[in-house]
Amino acid sequence: MEDRYAKGLKNLEKIHPEASKALMNNLQDIAPDLGRFVVEFPYGDVYDRPGLDLKSREIATVAALTALGDTKQELKDHIKGALNVGCNRQEIIEVIIQMAVYAGFPRAINGVYIAKEVFEELDEKNNI
Amino acid sequence: MEDRYAKGLKNLEKIHPEASKALMNNLQDIAPDLGRFVVEFPYGDVYDRPGLDLKSREIATVAALTALGDTKQELKDHIKGALNVGCNRQEIIEVIIQMAVYAGFPRAINGVYIAKEVFEELDEKNNI
Amino acid sequence: MEDRYAKGLKNLEKIHPEASKALMNNLQDIAPDLGRFVVEFPYGDVYDRPGLDLKSREIATVAALTALGDTKQELKDHIKGALNVGCNRQEIIEVIIQMAVYAGFPRAINGVYIAKEVFEELDEKNNI
Amino acid sequence: MEDRYAKGLKNLEKIHPEASKALMNNLQDIAPDLGRFVVEFPYGDVYDRPGLDLKSREIATVAALTALGDTKQELKDHIKGALNVGCNRQEIIEVIIQMAVYAGFPRAINGVYIAKEVFEELDEKNNI
Amino acid sequence: MEDRYAKGLKNLEKIHPEASKALMNNLQDIAPDLGRFVVEFPYGDVYDRPGLDLKSREIATVAALTALGDTKQELKDHIKGALNVGCNRQEIIEVIIQMAVYAGFPRAINGVYIAKEVFEELDEKNNI
Amino acid sequence: MEDRYAKGLKNLEKIHPEASKALMNNLQDIAPDLGRFVVEFPYGDVYDRPGLDLKSREIATVAALTALGDTKQELKDHIKGALNVGCNRQEIIEVIIQMAVYAGFPRAINGVYIAKEVFEELDEKNNI
Repeated sequence: MEDRYAKGLKNLEKIHPEASKALMNNLQDIAPDLGRFVVEFPYGDVYDRPGLDLKSREIATVAALTALGDTKQELKDHIKGALNVGCNRQEIIEVIIQMAVYAGFPRAINGVYIAKEVFEELDEKNNI
Repeated sequence: MEDRYAKGLKNLEKIHPEASKALMNNLQDIAPDLGRFVVEFPYGDVYDRPGLDLKSREIATVAALTALGDTKQELKDHIKGALNVGCNRQEIIEVIIQMAVYAGFPRAINGVYIAKEVFEELDEKNNI
Repeated sequence: MEDRYAKGLKNLEKIHPEASKALMNNLQDIAPDLGRFVVEFPYGDVYDRPGLDLKSREIATVAALTALGDTKQELKDHIKGALNVGCNRQEIIEVIIQMAVYAGFPRAINGVYIAKEVFEELDEKNNI
Repeated sequence: MEDRYAKGLKNLEKIHPEASKALMNNLQDIAPDLGRFVVEFPYGDVYDRPGLDLKSREIATVAALTALGDTKQELKDHIKGALNVGCNRQEIIEVIIQMAVYAGFPRAINGVYIAKEVFEELDEKNNI
Repeated sequence: MEDRYAKGLKNLEKIHPEASKALMNNLQDIAPDLGRFVVEFPYGDVYDRPGLDLKSREIATVAALTALGDTKQELKDHIKGALNVGCNRQEIIEVIIQMAVYAGFPRAINGVYIAKEVFEELDEKNNI
Repeated sequence: MEDRYAKGLKNLEKIHPEASKALMNNLQDIAPDLGRFVVEFPYGDVYDRPGLDLKSREIATVAALTALGDTKQELKDHIKGALNVGCNRQEIIEVIIQMAVYAGFPRAINGVYIAKEVFEELDEKNNI
């Protein structure tokens, strides 16, 4: 249905427009349908649901990606996404630190390093 | 420091008082210090930090436990905890459904079944 | 789009009709949309794609579920699904044994026990 | 080579003779070669190597199984194995508690509960 | 037994001769026995078994490595291995996309990127 | 309590003084409290406990980090830590090889490569 893709794009625009464009480009020649699925299922179906605000959704996603490990690019994208929908930097750091309790210190430390990289990239961009 | 334990107990009291008493009892004769660590580190150090409200902390924890798998008892406790600090049932279900995107459908389906069990237990208790 | 749900049901009918009905029933009152997502995304979008036959798809799924762990119900369903789309029992056991190499012996041993349970259930059912 | 199987049996005899017999029996009719692989590769090849004593090997295994999760039966077997090759109960509990740092509190708490079950089974057996 | 090593080499020659030589070289001075174990157990014992064809075995392995995460080099090797035993590129991409369902989108996206890298390396090599 | 931090620093000094200073520096401006937690909880509370010697503790940690995956920096630090508290290189390699049994060959191979990197760094440093 056209609608799911359109709704997905609208949600992606709110959450992380640049990251999603990069993803689409990277998948274009190898697995374009996976790119379409990303728009349609996570962003068109799931993030579009009522019942949980986008800020809470991004908190859940940052927590899960930190806990799962080996998700660096996605975690970077969702840290930016969390900032874009109303989290502040300290809230993001708190979510990641909390993962030390549930997934162990190595995941939390890696997550904080990834957040640091994101924040530095954003600061550099703002300084230009 | 006395304070960490006291602060931890205070936070546990807000989040899931019954679950933590059961945990302490279960650990009492086998690893009492692990019980003390649970009070002091997660609840005394981490959940006590400013910068993220308790409701957001429980959303992050429900997300992580669902994604990690093999955490049934902890997930049950934190679903109750999330309810106790202001989440409603639909919000919890939304967090768990969202994990289908990041950790796959089996984790999300298991998480929903666990939530269902918790809600039924609570309803039974309220009916008595 | 109506089509996705219809296509998903058709694929589910081929792969594991009983398991999916049980899943839908279990999710009905707690997270019916997750049930719908299962029909639409995995079975309507993914399993419906050309380019890989259903038997190979079930081999991939049995492998992944064995490797991930804490997926007992899903693994049971997909072992039956694999049988329904043309795998024989020995092929399924071979896939699971092979996981000892990639995910370690505990996952492979658990997987074999789960397959044994499925085969015994099927044999009992056929004897009635 | 006969030798690997014989060496494996000898090591299994030292580490956990009962558990391995139960495993062999359970696998006999469904995947007997996986049973043979368990004897030959982990116990014939790996545990037989010089360079690390059996007690240290069991400490490593208890740590890994606790961290990985969804390994209850194997963890029970290796807790008994650790006791059989010279660990005392406190050492085993310490290894498991330490996993709170690396794999999070839920894995450590589950591990301690499993150890408790093992110790109680052993105590019951000794009281008969 | 000489046989296992010889059988393993023969299977490795069919599946991914270059990757296995690189692995042996890398392990030579640090853990040569682990290199030998790789030849003997996975390739001499497991891949040599009747009951499942090599193409299906590689599909199972690509699925599992994608789902487990943090397995980049092994996944690259087995994508090449899958091509060498009869999978086409589209089948490999389909297996990886399917993992979005069972292990979440981040694992599937990473897997597709790794496949892309492999395909580009092969195309470059063929163009020289 | 001052004591926990002081005890933690003392244990870190024994285990891996350089790694911990690097960690503190890296966390200083982004999440200094996570740095403090690392000193206080793992090293002040856990590693300080009687009942398990430091060498056994490092064996457990190297095993767990190898098995969990996506823990490269932490594994490097703990391989050095294991050497600092009395493990020799062969013992460390044995622990990592053994993980092939419990977490699969990819984790063991990655672990051995990481150990190789650590040993080469140490040899270079000693040659200067």
